[in-house]
Amino acid sequence: MKDSHMREAKSPALDVAMAFHEAWANKDLDRALGYLDENIVCDAPAGRIEGIAAYREFMAPFVKMLLDSKMIAAFGDQDQAVIVYDTKTRLVDSAPAAECVTVEDDKITYNRFIFDRAPFDAARQARG
Amino acid sequence: MKDSHMREAKSPALDVAMAFHEAWANKDLDRALGYLDENIVCDAPAGRIEGIAAYREFMAPFVKMLLDSKMIAAFGDQDQAVIVYDTKTRLVDSAPAAECVTVEDDKITYNRFIFDRAPFDAARQARG
Repeated sequence: MKDSHMREAKSPALDVAMAFHEAWANKDLDRALGYLDENIVCDAPAGRIEGIAAYREFMAPFVKMLLDSKMIAAFGDQDQAVIVYDTKTRLVDSAPAAECVTVEDDKITYNRFIFDRAPFDAARQARG
Repeated sequence: MKDSHMREAKSPALDVAMAFHEAWANKDLDRALGYLDENIVCDAPAGRIEGIAAYREFMAPFVKMLLDSKMIAAFGDQDQAVIVYDTKTRLVDSAPAAECVTVEDDKITYNRFIFDRAPFDAARQARG
């Protein structure tokens, strides 16, 4: 069922979301940030992140400790896409996340970023 | 852009996911559970939930404190769907979540459920 009609339909927004994910999953943060609008707004669990510089600060420590990322689901239409994936980091073995992005002129302008902070907080506390 | 080609394509899995969401968003947990397979497996932030009885225990306290739910994104294909929504509860003003479900024979058999436990934990601690 992997090649159903929805997956085959073209989604410009999903193309950008997947390219963004592929870049940071391969630890190429510079290339990843190239898919973001300068004025990106990201609503993440800890609060709102505004602008590429802030996004870099947000992503850099995560990408540094990232060991693996596996795609669970990916859908999109003309201007919106959702990707769901699981990440393995030095801190947490399995940390699934969902990103719901809006794409304008081939750049991600908004990201609603959902993941559970609890296991990261617990791991950091355990490390002292 | 709301009526792009992807949204119009038929997704039997999304129909079920949306009906499930609509039921519990209206606090009708019995009707919601009717969309789940008896042997549903749900990977939630706190761990795996197996079977409808366990799912009811998981959902009941949440539905009880639920004030509002707003859909952010909804996509699907033949057998998989992703819905992203924001919830307002008596505990937490804004708690976005993503559910990535697998549907077989019109029932949800698997759900990867993603949300941030941190604000709920903090609110419970604050209440003492």
